[in-house]
Amino acid sequence: MPVGLAYELPEIHPVAGVYLGATAAKIKKNGKTDLVVMEFAPGSVTAATFTTNACCAAPVHVAKAHLAAEQPRALLINSGNANAATGESGMVNAKQTCQWLADELGCEPEEILPFSTGVIGEPLPMNKIQLGLVAAVADRAIDHWPHAMAGIMTTDIVPKMVSRVINIDGHDITITGMAKGSGMIHPNMATMLGFVATDAKITAELLQACLSQAVKKSFNRITVDGDTSTNDACTLTATQQADMPTMTDANSPQYKLFAAEIERVMTELAQMIVRDGEGATKFISVEVNGGESEAECLQVAHAVALSPLVKTAMFASDPNWGRILAAVGRAGVKNLDINRLQIFLGDVCIVRDGGRASDYTEEQGQQVMKSEDIAVRIELNRGQHSETVWTCDFSYDYVKINAEYRS
Amino acid sequence: MPVGLAYELPEIHPVAGVYLGATAAKIKKNGKTDLVVMEFAPGSVTAATFTTNACCAAPVHVAKAHLAAEQPRALLINSGNANAATGESGMVNAKQTCQWLADELGCEPEEILPFSTGVIGEPLPMNKIQLGLVAAVADRAIDHWPHAMAGIMTTDIVPKMVSRVINIDGHDITITGMAKGSGMIHPNMATMLGFVATDAKITAELLQACLSQAVKKSFNRITVDGDTSTNDACTLTATQQADMPTMTDANSPQYKLFAAEIERVMTELAQMIVRDGEGATKFISVEVNGGESEAECLQVAHAVALSPLVKTAMFASDPNWGRILAAVGRAGVKNLDINRLQIFLGDVCIVRDGGRASDYTEEQGQQVMKSEDIAVRIELNRGQHSETVWTCDFSYDYVKINAEYRS
Repeated sequence: MPVGLAYELPEIHPVAGVYLGATAAKIKKNGKTDLVVMEFAPGSVTAATFTTNACCAAPVHVAKAHLAAEQPRALLINSGNANAATGESGMVNAKQTCQWLADELGCEPEEILPFSTGVIGEPLPMNKIQLGLVAAVADRAIDHWPHAMAGIMTTDIVPKMVSRVINIDGHDITITGMAKGSGMIHPNMATMLGFVATDAKITAELLQACLSQAVKKSFNRITVDGDTSTNDACTLTATQQADMPTMTDANSPQYKLFAAEIERVMTELAQMIVRDGEGATKFISVEVNGGESEAECLQVAHAVALSPLVKTAMFASDPNWGRILAAVGRAGVKNLDINRLQIFLGDVCIVRDGGRASDYTEEQGQQVMKSEDIAVRIELNRGQHSETVWTCDFSYDYVKINAEYRS
Repeated sequence: MPVGLAYELPEIHPVAGVYLGATAAKIKKNGKTDLVVMEFAPGSVTAATFTTNACCAAPVHVAKAHLAAEQPRALLINSGNANAATGESGMVNAKQTCQWLADELGCEPEEILPFSTGVIGEPLPMNKIQLGLVAAVADRAIDHWPHAMAGIMTTDIVPKMVSRVINIDGHDITITGMAKGSGMIHPNMATMLGFVATDAKITAELLQACLSQAVKKSFNRITVDGDTSTNDACTLTATQQADMPTMTDANSPQYKLFAAEIERVMTELAQMIVRDGEGATKFISVEVNGGESEAECLQVAHAVALSPLVKTAMFASDPNWGRILAAVGRAGVKNLDINRLQIFLGDVCIVRDGGRASDYTEEQGQQVMKSEDIAVRIELNRGQHSETVWTCDFSYDYVKINAEYRS
C-alpha cells in the first residue's frame, strides 16, 4: 500500500502547447492503458536525462541520438515492455515506432523520443504499437494528462502527478509533471520515467541545466532496492507559451525561482515513487549531516537506505538502531570516529558516545516507529556537508511482487 | 530451510591440543548453549582476521589488541549478545570477561581472545557470563567440538563444521573448523565467526599468511544481504602437535598443499553459511570470467549477487535473465560492451549479442531454475581475470526472520 499517498489526482493544470493522447494497445497483459503520445507545439524545447546503466535499453539509445539531432515534437511512451536487452532488433523496432508516429504527426522520425518501461528482454509487439499509435494520436487533448499518466504505469499502485501555477514577476507559469516507478529504483540518473512540462519561456541550454540540477537532488536521491533500471529517463519540456520574457541567465532571480520550483516538483514526484515503492509500508528519509564531502554523506545515506536489515526492521516497526549503526560502520568512510557519531530517529537521539544514547528508552524509539513516515538523521560531526535520500521499507509484499512479476 | 545441507554433523576429528567446553549461560533467551571456551595447549599459534566495519564491536578491539601482545591460550565466545555499540562500558566488559577466564585457566588476560555474536547494543549480562565461565571451563574436552558449535550459533538452523585428516609427505595433519552466520553477511573480512584448528607445525607468520589468503577466497566471497557485521572474525590455530617438520617456507610444496586444504575447508564453511542464509531456498554461485581485473569481476559478481530483484526472481525459480543483465549493466564497469557479454544459467546461454540468446527457450531456463543449486556465469570477454562469489535467494522468510529477530 502506498505510504501516505492519495489515490486521487491533484488538480491538474494543462500546459499550453502540450497535447496528450493514450490508448490500451494490449501491450500489457491486463488490458490497461499502455501507449502514450505527448506532443509539443512547434518552438518547444526539451531537456532530458537518462539512465547510466551500461546495458541501457534500445529506446534510451534512440532517444539520446534523436535529442542530439532535433528538438522533439513528441514523446512516444509505452508500458508493459521495456524493449531492453533486445539487441539489434530492439534498436530497429524503437526507430520504427518513431517513424510511424512521425508519419502520423507529419514530422521527422528524429523529432520523436521513444520511451519504454516494463518487462526486459521481450521483443516489442510491433503490430499492437502500430495500431495503437493511431488511437493514441486521435486521443490527443490538452487535458488528457490523467489518461497519459495511466498509460505509463507498470507496478505502480497510484498515479504520480504534481501540477501547479506559480507567478514570477507577475507572469503565471504552469508546471505539470508525471512519473512512474516503484521497483528497480536506485539513484544513478532518474531510476524511473518522469515527464514534466511547463509553458515557461527559457533557452534550451538553461532548461537542460535546470533539469540536471533538479534530477540530481530529487530522482537521484531516492532508492527502493538499489537496482538501477535500464530504461530510466526524465524529460522537461518548455513550450515557451507563457506570457513572459525568455529566461536566459542562470543567475537571474527569475530563473532561480523557476529552477527551485522545478526541483520541488521533481522532489515531490520522486518521493511519490518511494511512497509507492513495491511493498512499501514506511517512507523513510535518511539525512546525513556533518560529512567531509557530498560523496561521503551519500555513501553513508545509501548504506543505511539500502540495508535489507535496516529495511526489514523498519517494516517491523522495530527501532533496531544497532542495524543502522552497523550500516553506517560498513559504509566505507575513512577514519570514521564512532564516538563522534550521533544517530536520531525522529527527534530521539538513539546513538551517542559510541553506543546507545544513555537517556534513550525503547519506548521512545517505538513511539517514532509507529508513524508511517520515519526520519533517520545521522550526524557525522566531521565536516559541513549534508545530503538526504529517501527510501522505503522491505516487506513480505516486496518479495511477493518481485517473485511473481512475470507469472 | 538450509539448501542442500545436512542437519547431521560430519565425522569430527579432534585436534590434538585443542580443548573445548560450552554451557548454557542464559545469555540467549531460548536457554540454548551460548558460552564457549576453546583452550589451546602451550606452544600453539593463532592467526586471525577481523571485520572492517568502522563500528566494530568491543570484543573485536580487545581481541586485536590481545593478539598483538600475546599468543592466545584460549578463545572465549558468547552468542546471544554482540557486545557491539556498547561504548566504553562494552570495552570494560570485554576485558573483564578475559580476566575471569584467565583467572580460571591460570594465564594472563592478554592470552584470551573474546568473541561475541548476537543482538547489537545490549550490555553483556556479566553475572551470567561469570557464572557460565566456570561451567564452560569444567566442560572442556578434546571431543567437545559439537557442543562448542552449538554454543556459537544464533539464527543458524544447522551447525557448520568441516573436519578432515590429510597426509602430507607421510605426516597426518588434522584440520577441524566450525563457523556460524546466516544474516548480516557480506564480504569485507569474514562476515561471520569462524574458528579453525589444526595440529600442524607452522610458524605464526606463515599461519597468518595462510589464513589471510584463505579468507580472501572463501569467507570474503560470500554475501547474503550485503550487510557487513560489526563482529566478524575468523581464527586459525595451529597447535604444533602433529609429527612433522615445522613449515616455514611459503614456497615449499608441503605448505602449498596445506594452504590449499585450509582454503578448501574455509570455502566449505563459507558456502555452508550461504546455504543456511536467512530464508534461503537456493544456493547461487555467481562466476565472472574475462574481466580486466579482480576488482571489476567482483564488482559485477556483487552487483548480481546483491540485487534484490535477481534474488527474488531466484526465489520464484524464474529465469528472469533481464534482471541479471540489468545488474551487470549497473555494476559500474567502465566501457562495458553489452554486445560482447554472455550470460549463462547453468550450461544454458541466456544472453548473447546484446540480448536474449537467439536459441534460448524459457523451458531451458526453467529447467535450470528447478535445482536448489544455481550457477550464474557471466563472460565479460575483455580480460583474463575470474572471480566467484556465493549467495542465496531472497524469500518471504528472509523478511520474516529479520522483521521478527528482536521480538
